[in-house]
Amino acid sequence: MPTIRILTETELRSAVPLNDAAVGCVENAFRALARGGVVMPPILSMAITEHNGEVDVKTAYVPGINSFALKVSPGFFDNPKIGLPSTTGLMILFSARTGQVEALLLDNGYLTDVRTAAAGAVAARHLSRPDSRRATIFGTGMQARLQLQALTLVRPIERATIWGRDAGKAEALAAAMTGALGIAVTAETDAARAIAGADIVVTTTPATAPVVRADWLHPGQHVTAMGSDQHTKNELAPDCLRRADVYVPDRLSQTRSLGELRSAIDAGVMAADAAFPELGVIVAGKAPGRTAPDQITIADLTGTGVQDTAIATLARERAAARGAGTDFTS
Amino acid sequence: MPTIRILTETELRSAVPLNDAAVGCVENAFRALARGGVVMPPILSMAITEHNGEVDVKTAYVPGINSFALKVSPGFFDNPKIGLPSTTGLMILFSARTGQVEALLLDNGYLTDVRTAAAGAVAARHLSRPDSRRATIFGTGMQARLQLQALTLVRPIERATIWGRDAGKAEALAAAMTGALGIAVTAETDAARAIAGADIVVTTTPATAPVVRADWLHPGQHVTAMGSDQHTKNELAPDCLRRADVYVPDRLSQTRSLGELRSAIDAGVMAADAAFPELGVIVAGKAPGRTAPDQITIADLTGTGVQDTAIATLARERAAARGAGTDFTS
Repeated sequence: MPTIRILTETELRSAVPLNDAAVGCVENAFRALARGGVVMPPILSMAITEHNGEVDVKTAYVPGINSFALKVSPGFFDNPKIGLPSTTGLMILFSARTGQVEALLLDNGYLTDVRTAAAGAVAARHLSRPDSRRATIFGTGMQARLQLQALTLVRPIERATIWGRDAGKAEALAAAMTGALGIAVTAETDAARAIAGADIVVTTTPATAPVVRADWLHPGQHVTAMGSDQHTKNELAPDCLRRADVYVPDRLSQTRSLGELRSAIDAGVMAADAAFPELGVIVAGKAPGRTAPDQITIADLTGTGVQDTAIATLARERAAARGAGTDFTS
Repeated sequence: MPTIRILTETELRSAVPLNDAAVGCVENAFRALARGGVVMPPILSMAITEHNGEVDVKTAYVPGINSFALKVSPGFFDNPKIGLPSTTGLMILFSARTGQVEALLLDNGYLTDVRTAAAGAVAARHLSRPDSRRATIFGTGMQARLQLQALTLVRPIERATIWGRDAGKAEALAAAMTGALGIAVTAETDAARAIAGADIVVTTTPATAPVVRADWLHPGQHVTAMGSDQHTKNELAPDCLRRADVYVPDRLSQTRSLGELRSAIDAGVMAADAAFPELGVIVAGKAPGRTAPDQITIADLTGTGVQDTAIATLARERAAARGAGTDFTS
């Protein structure tokens, strides 16, 4: 009977903070994706419309990593009405050699938050100008907070702007981030003004209609759009992708159907079969990312199972080193 | 933070034996499937060929059941070489209203064994002759044992035959089942002889080429084929389906791609778009099953997520009533 280690959210939060190691771990995951041999099946998705909910399941096998994670992410959007978070879930770590369950990571979505923010840092490290000092974040949720924090790990961010439709929320987050990061963070409700002067823009909204227009972008900017992970979502006006000098998907097959590229294809701005080097290919040095300071670059992040396998493996190692968790035999 | 109940295989084995209640639970699941409103996405499947392994994930939402199960079934076929079982896995029970994790059922595949055998009993109850006294089981594994036990719950089985290619394995299982069930169970290595005189035949093999020929079948017989759950598997010669008076899939969309119907379609014996009432429709009384004692009936069982949700819900209730399990807050 196998022994299974169970780790709680509290244990995982202290074992895997959003830091350089987490960014490096996710960067390695993208590099592995570019090496080939990764098995990443299409996402299993089930809608429970009568309760305004959905469940997504992702997994990926990465050659060279002895375990693979399977992540279950429920999103039930009426939960806040009864005081519960919309998104929860867990990850399960299996041996890639025997299929035995090795660990249950009861993270309530925390590890997803970390690996998603870390991907934003990886995109910024490989696509933004090294001297990027001003960041603008669209959105006021958990990813708005974490994406900004992640940028400070890889670029010398000195000032930041939080854009939100709700001025109160934007101001509250700006105040909190000023305190947390020790940099000047201000709130802005005008999207064009929020983008003007930013070296890096990260969109983290659940928008289903564009919040960023192409004529607001300016040379030298890098944009990471990470809010779109469904075929109904869209943050960037389709012609942003045409305007960009470099467009980089995390996984082309996914961004064609779920990401900003999907909207651009639907709008006729991009060809349905247009090919682009993926982020991992650029991380691995097999294709150039930004080649000049005045280019506009866009990263389109939909989230990959490879990131989950990487962060879950890191979490298990970190927890084991600390002796964290509870063992179960079953 | 949600409280999650964790149940081990040992606890689940004593809470959910293969009995009338388990059969009734799975029968209700099929009835629910026929009522409509069930959401059952396609199976997520990932092959890890370098370790001769695969992982399947099934789930289903059943209106009226307040929870849904997600089942992860790894199969790693080199495991026996190192003394581990090929198939393992677990089920996770989520609230269908909020998506919160309610229970982790660390069953190592046990609940799948039970719900699969219970489906065999449901098929026999609705398709075999009520006076069925002789059963023949093809195969010598866990499902061979459980399918025979399940038949005794719904039909007055007095004698049984175990067919196996390996005479030693067939004899060992026959001896064990004679002791366990208190009926005469004999072994047979000739498939035609094994089928002659049987009222009910259940095939439980991993065969990729037919083990049952159509001209061996005789009027009045019922056949349940439950070994095929992959598009490479096949237990019944394709013309068995043409010879049958009544063919019943557990889920038509699945048997067309994974079951015996898949082989019959590939062989040109059945039309790719031929429609048949599903087992649940017959259980619900919306279509007839067997209508005469001399008919030949075939049930084609590929396994459904609805069965998993039903058995997992039963397991959680039974365990709660006994105070079994360990609570985790995360």
